[in-house]
Amino acid sequence: MKRAQLQLMPLEEAQRLFFARVLLPDREEERETSAALGRVTSRACYAQRDLPHYPMAAMDGIAVRACAARPGEKLRRGRDFEYVDTGDPIPEPFDSVVKIEEVRELGEDTVEIERAPSPGMHVRAVGEDFARGALVVPAGACLTPEAIAALLATGNLTVWVKSQPKIVFIPTGSELVPPEREPAVGEIVETNSQLVKGLVSRWGGAVTVTESVPNELAILRSAVREALARFDIVLVGAGTSKGRGDWVAQVVRELGEVVVHGVAYHPGHPVLLGVCEQKPVVGLPGYPVATWLALQLFVRPVLERYYYGQERPRLSVWARLAQPIKSGRGFREFVRARLERLPDGSWLVHPKQGGASKLSTLVHIDGWIEVPEDVASLPAGTLVEVKLTTP
Amino acid sequence: MKRAQLQLMPLEEAQRLFFARVLLPDREEERETSAALGRVTSRACYAQRDLPHYPMAAMDGIAVRACAARPGEKLRRGRDFEYVDTGDPIPEPFDSVVKIEEVRELGEDTVEIERAPSPGMHVRAVGEDFARGALVVPAGACLTPEAIAALLATGNLTVWVKSQPKIVFIPTGSELVPPEREPAVGEIVETNSQLVKGLVSRWGGAVTVTESVPNELAILRSAVREALARFDIVLVGAGTSKGRGDWVAQVVRELGEVVVHGVAYHPGHPVLLGVCEQKPVVGLPGYPVATWLALQLFVRPVLERYYYGQERPRLSVWARLAQPIKSGRGFREFVRARLERLPDGSWLVHPKQGGASKLSTLVHIDGWIEVPEDVASLPAGTLVEVKLTTP
Repeated sequence: MKRAQLQLMPLEEAQRLFFARVLLPDREEERETSAALGRVTSRACYAQRDLPHYPMAAMDGIAVRACAARPGEKLRRGRDFEYVDTGDPIPEPFDSVVKIEEVRELGEDTVEIERAPSPGMHVRAVGEDFARGALVVPAGACLTPEAIAALLATGNLTVWVKSQPKIVFIPTGSELVPPEREPAVGEIVETNSQLVKGLVSRWGGAVTVTESVPNELAILRSAVREALARFDIVLVGAGTSKGRGDWVAQVVRELGEVVVHGVAYHPGHPVLLGVCEQKPVVGLPGYPVATWLALQLFVRPVLERYYYGQERPRLSVWARLAQPIKSGRGFREFVRARLERLPDGSWLVHPKQGGASKLSTLVHIDGWIEVPEDVASLPAGTLVEVKLTTP
Repeated sequence: MKRAQLQLMPLEEAQRLFFARVLLPDREEERETSAALGRVTSRACYAQRDLPHYPMAAMDGIAVRACAARPGEKLRRGRDFEYVDTGDPIPEPFDSVVKIEEVRELGEDTVEIERAPSPGMHVRAVGEDFARGALVVPAGACLTPEAIAALLATGNLTVWVKSQPKIVFIPTGSELVPPEREPAVGEIVETNSQLVKGLVSRWGGAVTVTESVPNELAILRSAVREALARFDIVLVGAGTSKGRGDWVAQVVRELGEVVVHGVAYHPGHPVLLGVCEQKPVVGLPGYPVATWLALQLFVRPVLERYYYGQERPRLSVWARLAQPIKSGRGFREFVRARLERLPDGSWLVHPKQGGASKLSTLVHIDGWIEVPEDVASLPAGTLVEVKLTTP
């Protein structure tokens, strides 16, 4: 008898089924605003005071009453005007500023102006940037340096942010050794954890990596069970196929439910998507490109849905293929690619083909090209959409 | 007499003059590779060993000798084949793998295969991902998670990276108070340091913010002199114009040279670009949008030139204007803008006009639109290039 093959599911169907079953529970925490860069707000933030909070000179110049400051007349300091610098309060009873370049200084404390100001000219009105109570940052927004500045300027010293989902990566395989060890024949340096740590942290996850677990059912089962007690998302590295020592599917079946096993895309089709104790468990195929792509296709969207309620549109660039691409029919092919800007401002794209095992195809890329299931090849010169993977 | 106005220089000329005078000295340091995420390499990195370092099964299946494995014949384990899983060494004398789905198991240790394998089939050859001595990461590359994984997999436990330039921000203005304090009339909460810290760190600078310095010549002079002794780039906040208490230009003249004072762009034309003791000194106009834009136009390029030897192309998106834009003739206008993806996949762009003082125009934007000096307005519906500011 022959061993069974995985029945491969179309990508969109797999994503739809899995995401419908995965809902990370909302959790939030209060943070000092100045320490919340990159976090995502869980509540809308409103101005606690007006910005500016007093009528403020917008220019260096003289403060005047617009109705009383006539061009060509002598204006006396104290009575008709007062010098102000940018940011100064406008002294009573003045309401406008004439900028200093338009002021002719006739003598000490006497000036004349060329043009009549309009009321409020060059004065920043109270609340013109943010009125007290106005929305500063909505809920579900990633806090940029600009947002942090706006929050602090409007009196928001703390901010409620979504808690970071706790994500664990369990590398499996008796052959794995840490990078510090020179690998013998049959040993493989464990480096997928670097992909998980780097990418999933960038997407807002708090990542923990466990020791490598050997290919044994009982050990893997207890590792996953323990992980489910402590983490929100469990990622298991390798062992996701149907070979000897591929125990991930069995463990997930025992502890919960396999939602999808095998998806029709390259590289990395033997991905496993499960749910145990209401928590997503993803079996990442062990080859580096397969791990990387499964993270992009199944983990990143889960985090975006948690943070933003939806997936965010990917930025993309249209570019001409520098070399032809070959693809397998019946599979969505994800071709890693490097962009090159041409002197005319258009983009050329260099595809990096090569199997799931080639870490070299992940270094120095800007994004990927998706080749549809019914396309077997694309000639050089084809205009293709490159979805950017850089953050 | 009237006070002198700044003579404004065209933007490209100002950038060219300033960047020609600024050359940060090359410095490098050795780092543990696993702690070098986001750093930029100062030396090329080569594979210290082959990856893979032994002939490796690329599939679960049986290892055979291609020349001796005939379809339809009984193959005996030990003599004609051996079972292998993905990642296993290929045992002598075998040279190829037949994947398990194509193996018919006839009995214990006896199988037959359907198709003759070609030599080397489903075997990862030694060095096929990276050959020993091959380039893994060139000099001048920002280390991604993917690059870190490739370096560790090829035996590069440490990596030489460019040292981070030390950048200081000196906020000036007697009216500045820290965010923790409720500001009285005439006081302004100092928040530009948040923009400097957040943006300049993102671009690879190691940022220090000093206490605010009052608008006094002697104090500012000694603050800048002290900063020049300890930092590679000095950024001074506000006081860059020609008003009372605007001492930055004088301090830079005393300690070095003013290269540019006043540039024909909005918002933020009174920027000051100087060189003291071979170090760049940038006077950032005090309004938040002006500070932000001066960082983008004059500080980010200095860091990119240090790290990459050149400025990097900005990603941009073409989008249709949702509202019209007005601009001032003779000035390059930088209009902050938020993108919206339409159902058809095209982009709509919402410009956020408003002066240099409006922090609100910096929150929730994706980039900017540049309106050329000779254009006074752009109607709604115009197709414009939005340069992305998100990292």
